[in-house]
Amino acid sequence: MRAEIISVGTELLLGQITDTNAPFLARLLASYGVDVRFKQTVGDNLERVRASVALALDRADLVVTSGGLGPTEDDLTVEAVALATGLPLVFDQGTADTIRTLFESRGRQAPESVFRQARIPLGATVIPNRRGTAPGLMVPVGDRTVFTFPGVPWEMEGLVADGLEPWLAARAGGEVIRSRVLRIAGLGESVVEERVRDLIHGSNPTVAPLAKRGEVHLRITAKAAPEAVGPMLAAMEAALRERLGHAVFGADDESLPLVTARLLVERRLTLAIAESCTAGLVASRLTEMPGSSAFLLAGYVPYSNEAKVRDLGIAPELIAAHGAVSAEVAAAMAAGVRARARADLGLAVTGIAGPSGGTAAKPVGLVYLGLQDASGTRTEELRFGSEPGRDGVRYLAAQAATNLLRLCLLRL
Amino acid sequence: MRAEIISVGTELLLGQITDTNAPFLARLLASYGVDVRFKQTVGDNLERVRASVALALDRADLVVTSGGLGPTEDDLTVEAVALATGLPLVFDQGTADTIRTLFESRGRQAPESVFRQARIPLGATVIPNRRGTAPGLMVPVGDRTVFTFPGVPWEMEGLVADGLEPWLAARAGGEVIRSRVLRIAGLGESVVEERVRDLIHGSNPTVAPLAKRGEVHLRITAKAAPEAVGPMLAAMEAALRERLGHAVFGADDESLPLVTARLLVERRLTLAIAESCTAGLVASRLTEMPGSSAFLLAGYVPYSNEAKVRDLGIAPELIAAHGAVSAEVAAAMAAGVRARARADLGLAVTGIAGPSGGTAAKPVGLVYLGLQDASGTRTEELRFGSEPGRDGVRYLAAQAATNLLRLCLLRL
Repeated sequence: MRAEIISVGTELLLGQITDTNAPFLARLLASYGVDVRFKQTVGDNLERVRASVALALDRADLVVTSGGLGPTEDDLTVEAVALATGLPLVFDQGTADTIRTLFESRGRQAPESVFRQARIPLGATVIPNRRGTAPGLMVPVGDRTVFTFPGVPWEMEGLVADGLEPWLAARAGGEVIRSRVLRIAGLGESVVEERVRDLIHGSNPTVAPLAKRGEVHLRITAKAAPEAVGPMLAAMEAALRERLGHAVFGADDESLPLVTARLLVERRLTLAIAESCTAGLVASRLTEMPGSSAFLLAGYVPYSNEAKVRDLGIAPELIAAHGAVSAEVAAAMAAGVRARARADLGLAVTGIAGPSGGTAAKPVGLVYLGLQDASGTRTEELRFGSEPGRDGVRYLAAQAATNLLRLCLLRL
Repeated sequence: MRAEIISVGTELLLGQITDTNAPFLARLLASYGVDVRFKQTVGDNLERVRASVALALDRADLVVTSGGLGPTEDDLTVEAVALATGLPLVFDQGTADTIRTLFESRGRQAPESVFRQARIPLGATVIPNRRGTAPGLMVPVGDRTVFTFPGVPWEMEGLVADGLEPWLAARAGGEVIRSRVLRIAGLGESVVEERVRDLIHGSNPTVAPLAKRGEVHLRITAKAAPEAVGPMLAAMEAALRERLGHAVFGADDESLPLVTARLLVERRLTLAIAESCTAGLVASRLTEMPGSSAFLLAGYVPYSNEAKVRDLGIAPELIAAHGAVSAEVAAAMAAGVRARARADLGLAVTGIAGPSGGTAAKPVGLVYLGLQDASGTRTEELRFGSEPGRDGVRYLAAQAATNLLRLCLLRL
């Protein structure tokens, strides 16, 4: 099957927004083995959208459009599809009722203009929009098919899942393609690859490594009948986890702070944090999850040495002897913050975020972590260098501190 | 003049990479007043690239391609342009010499395949590539013109600056389009629109409002001769600033924390922050800028009431009487943190981020800010509701706290 993607919107032609819908659709179509040969981008102009759809129907079996489906005069895609296919537009009462109900549920009356969205080409199937007002359409044109979706990515993705994916799955010999991403912290991409190299070379499921900032992802993709695809993913996930152990912190959209916060809640442990170079980043990320007051007692950003001495009880002599960025001070910060807040765990970060301020002995990107629990104190030295930039060093330090905490919680 | 952009590359059709060249070219063409009506993306296939170029030449005066210009068999764009235009390919000795010299300067011998890049359509002008081997081409086709560029963005941008921009400038009657974005905090989009409505209705410069999370943007766009466009933007900016006053915090890529941090440094004032619901977000954003240790003395995340009492000296009776989320406690936090850190300014945030935990009297999204300087203490009550979600409430609270600080600094 050959497909063509059409993105509609003058703002795309002006370069004001970057088209993320077309790559999304392209990856989806590729995952079902559909051959995409052309992609078109066209402005909000009836005749030009019509010409694009006609051209696409001339050279593809499946045409997928996004954009131009809203309630305004600029939204011409449905009309253009009708013109390109010769199908008359008819009024779809079901869609009109849905729109009216949606507005009423918000205590507003639907303006007349919004009912433009209830006109559909004769014979089209409406794909209801759970995330907005403009429905998607599946329009059969002889042995070819046009799918139209709105341009708002969140709405388009929902409609694609509801309408296009089942259609593709039905035509893919009943096989579906599913992915799962394993997320890894504390190991570099090359180490991860080395440990799982033989598994990466399989063909179904495939395993693709991807380096992200402060973590490594392994994307497992399997192609099989709907009932078989889940177990295939699970088997590969188990094999990868056996190789990588606790370095795998989560899957899909589970972030490192989320997983760590969840462990703190499960183990009913309390935490206090002292962070210098990250200046609140560790605390603010750990509290993104609701219910974080169950574990976080207090955070400190002792940016000045005075604050380190006053709030965390660090001896000025220790700072004078080793410098504020040192394993000794990181350990003292962890102990100090734990004692002050009477928490089960004390976590500390101190480092040189840069871009200036480093020395040969203590270069930009040098970070020390400290962690104290009832059993003792450990420290970790990290050298990120100056290349990640100030933002990068801070992010990597926060990620490493959170991972140190997570690994400690797994042992408790 | 009408233009069409063609991006060549199978990896684009697979969605493996996002096309940033096309938006770059689109913005450039728009800035010269050139009307881009279509954009095509096509894979590495000779016949399909030829068809795309032929179609584009049929409906545009200027065709700009990127991609498919390298030394490999996949790189077919020049051959496709030759087929689409009927121009024979000729060998360009100058380009061949340049390539040979480039390789020799790296101590390597040029492989035969690389000389594919020396074949050009008859009559084409070579645009030498300072950043790689594949040159750009300017190909006159009757009264139309095709420009071809390699797909590597860094190389393409250099060639565009050297070849396409001068060509456009010469044909644009000398007019260019330039934009500037004014950024506004503390006022809603409707209030901003109301204050500047008459200015929004102008046609050159145009002023377009855009609501962003926690701020409103006004994009000013002017079209004029190069020497006139700057003053036009500046005049409109001045008119808008007069209406909006200090609500305008910056322009273009100046963020609210950046502008606020800069004010603290300029005024040589020190700051201490106590943040409950934002848990370090205000401090971590204010310290994104290098040199922030000049103003930030200490930050506190007094998540528990014990920490509020112990670290900020807040009377337990005050919390018992008003609740931790109250104007009284926000004021006491600001005073406490300022006194403890001996800072010029004390800033405090306390609120209910949600999604649960609110009451009828104190609903989710209720946030109090406190700020104390030598002249006194002020508080601010904000009601964001539950709709922005936990993340949204925290972000909006951090943004509002930073803006309160900024407005105070402007008065000092």
